[in-house]
Amino acid sequence: MKCAGIVVEYNPFHNGHLYHLRKTVEKSGADCIIAVMSGNFLQRGEPALVSKFSRTKMALKAGVDLVVELPYAFATQKAETFAFGSVQTLTNLGSQFICFGSESGSIHSFYRTIQFIDENQEEFNRHVQNLMKTGVSYPKACSNAFHSLNPSEEMIDLSKPNNILGYQYIRAIEKQNRSIIPLTIKRIQSDYHENELSPQGISSATSIRKSLFSNSQLSIEGQVPNSTWDELLRFKEEYGTFANWERFWPFLQYRLMNSRPDELRTIYEVEEGLEHRLIANAKEASSFQSFMEKVKTKRYTWTRLQRVCTHILTNASKEEVETGAEKIKYVRILGFNERGREYLRKNKKSFPIPIVSKISSGIEGTMNLDIKASRMYAFGFDGHARQKLIRQEFAQPPLIFESGSR
Amino acid sequence: MKCAGIVVEYNPFHNGHLYHLRKTVEKSGADCIIAVMSGNFLQRGEPALVSKFSRTKMALKAGVDLVVELPYAFATQKAETFAFGSVQTLTNLGSQFICFGSESGSIHSFYRTIQFIDENQEEFNRHVQNLMKTGVSYPKACSNAFHSLNPSEEMIDLSKPNNILGYQYIRAIEKQNRSIIPLTIKRIQSDYHENELSPQGISSATSIRKSLFSNSQLSIEGQVPNSTWDELLRFKEEYGTFANWERFWPFLQYRLMNSRPDELRTIYEVEEGLEHRLIANAKEASSFQSFMEKVKTKRYTWTRLQRVCTHILTNASKEEVETGAEKIKYVRILGFNERGREYLRKNKKSFPIPIVSKISSGIEGTMNLDIKASRMYAFGFDGHARQKLIRQEFAQPPLIFESGSR
Repeated sequence: MKCAGIVVEYNPFHNGHLYHLRKTVEKSGADCIIAVMSGNFLQRGEPALVSKFSRTKMALKAGVDLVVELPYAFATQKAETFAFGSVQTLTNLGSQFICFGSESGSIHSFYRTIQFIDENQEEFNRHVQNLMKTGVSYPKACSNAFHSLNPSEEMIDLSKPNNILGYQYIRAIEKQNRSIIPLTIKRIQSDYHENELSPQGISSATSIRKSLFSNSQLSIEGQVPNSTWDELLRFKEEYGTFANWERFWPFLQYRLMNSRPDELRTIYEVEEGLEHRLIANAKEASSFQSFMEKVKTKRYTWTRLQRVCTHILTNASKEEVETGAEKIKYVRILGFNERGREYLRKNKKSFPIPIVSKISSGIEGTMNLDIKASRMYAFGFDGHARQKLIRQEFAQPPLIFESGSR
Repeated sequence: MKCAGIVVEYNPFHNGHLYHLRKTVEKSGADCIIAVMSGNFLQRGEPALVSKFSRTKMALKAGVDLVVELPYAFATQKAETFAFGSVQTLTNLGSQFICFGSESGSIHSFYRTIQFIDENQEEFNRHVQNLMKTGVSYPKACSNAFHSLNPSEEMIDLSKPNNILGYQYIRAIEKQNRSIIPLTIKRIQSDYHENELSPQGISSATSIRKSLFSNSQLSIEGQVPNSTWDELLRFKEEYGTFANWERFWPFLQYRLMNSRPDELRTIYEVEEGLEHRLIANAKEASSFQSFMEKVKTKRYTWTRLQRVCTHILTNASKEEVETGAEKIKYVRILGFNERGREYLRKNKKSFPIPIVSKISSGIEGTMNLDIKASRMYAFGFDGHARQKLIRQEFAQPPLIFESGSR
């Protein structure tokens, strides 16, 4: 069986994701599509709108064959670490391809860019360092440094998030000496701003989430497959709300206010005295939004701070995350259809690491951070819904669906 | 000016407290009555129904002249430490008397009891140790050991909480070599169970709180002075709710579920592997009540566990509490009337420790635990009320009232 991997968050699954999925099948000619998906907390340091199992359901109904979880220690990280864990998960599962979206749709541009940066490594690094000294954030410094080297038009634009991820996937393949083949698909999107819904039915997940939290929920019906729409309604019915940072603010504020600075410093990415800034602002803010606005600086971007907040919320220590992010040590299966099941059955003997369907005591210690993060996610919900989500991490076996049509 | 001290929690102030106050004036002949009051968390490990400032108002309106706060490190402790801090606060303030309620109303009985225990020290200790080996709690073991020594009828009953406190006040006076004179007043109370309101208008604070959380709030109107009733209504209007442990359960559950056992072990009174028991039960419980029922054992009494929960909620470490409970290092003034102000003015030069009216940066470090506890209390309330209570710890100067009639 030929297999292609995609790296996703599906927050929520929308028409753009469906396009990416169909194009992946087309371009790779694969029989089985594996999605490596972030769990309940996402790369930009946000809680997912709906739980990982709900998002797995969306993926399977749309035609993904196998959904596995990218561990917390990789999922809530900068592009480089996120990409490293994603690629390693896919290679562990024997995937021949990784297929990602990009602005240009040309894999050649990525290789040219990598070659160009390697050839100008010293100058590039010097630029980055100088820019960071002036307080510019690392991603911004990389992008600016790259532009100042006068790259040709054939190269990718490293200021676009999707391009950065693609660049890091290829870097990760190189670093791991893997034979997995990168493919890229040109993203389609209207010229609409990412905060607004597009009348063509391909909108950003950001704009879709915004609509879901406003009173115009009906307007997103045309932006997502019916199966997503049904699942969103079902989730809200069952759990009472969608999650966002504001739902977690009381717990983050509580944690920031009862921690001593030395305790906060044990948390991953709390560095350079940031702990004092966080504590001082926590008591003044009555919402996550107002807290972030007070704390944000040029150096501490919104995304970086959100990731810090996620680690504080989940109490993820430097040691835990660093150990967890050394390499992929297990693959947690969230769901599959018949094709996915067949793929697992045929290849299970060749997988070099444990495949986890249900958490058992043997693997529990290694997965501690994932378990904790999933349970902390439950605190974005109230009463029974919270208890149900707390139990779900151990109680829920992989979801099994009939193979969907793509 | 002659001054008498009383040690109170006023949760809430009721007719029994008014009786105690009047009898204190009568028995001591004092011009000024100082109440040493627990802050937002109480001796039995509970959040107070209403904030310390609201309870201060009740006290001043009922005729107390000066209300000061017993620091957290003493207030949320077993009787011995609680009494030690209370007596030391009063002696620091130059109080000539300490006047407490007891079952017998005879100070002589207390001295006889102390003498008797001292004379039978070895046997008493042996009994206590043997009983504790069988899993009996320390207070229960003391009470049983005392009874097994065949005390005479003149002695006090050491199984009654009020008697234990009185006993510890006198022990504290002895230990501190202080000249403060202990007085005791016989408690009046109907034979009603402590969970039920008495038709005579003297009911336990427990039964009054129970009524407040039920729908029969009006029924307590005859059990408390009008000033208390007014203040209870005002507080609920301003802050939206009264506090109890259930209001804090989400935060305690969150904290228990994201802590590692080694983190919990740094918390005061988390010992003997209790951390594992707490963590294991936190995820199963959907309320504080059900959590406590699961965790409780013969050795871990409800009160002891509540105190542990309080320390976890406030993240009070062993080091912080032990340092804080070495001795009284400051006196925080919560409110006074003209007589109280006059007393402070006349005596301020003779006070051996700082008198704190408003928290300033000089004293902030020493008072850290009190500040943290006050802020954690705010999390029992929602939205604006929470933010108001968070700010109150720094913003609120002592309350000043005209001298009330007793």
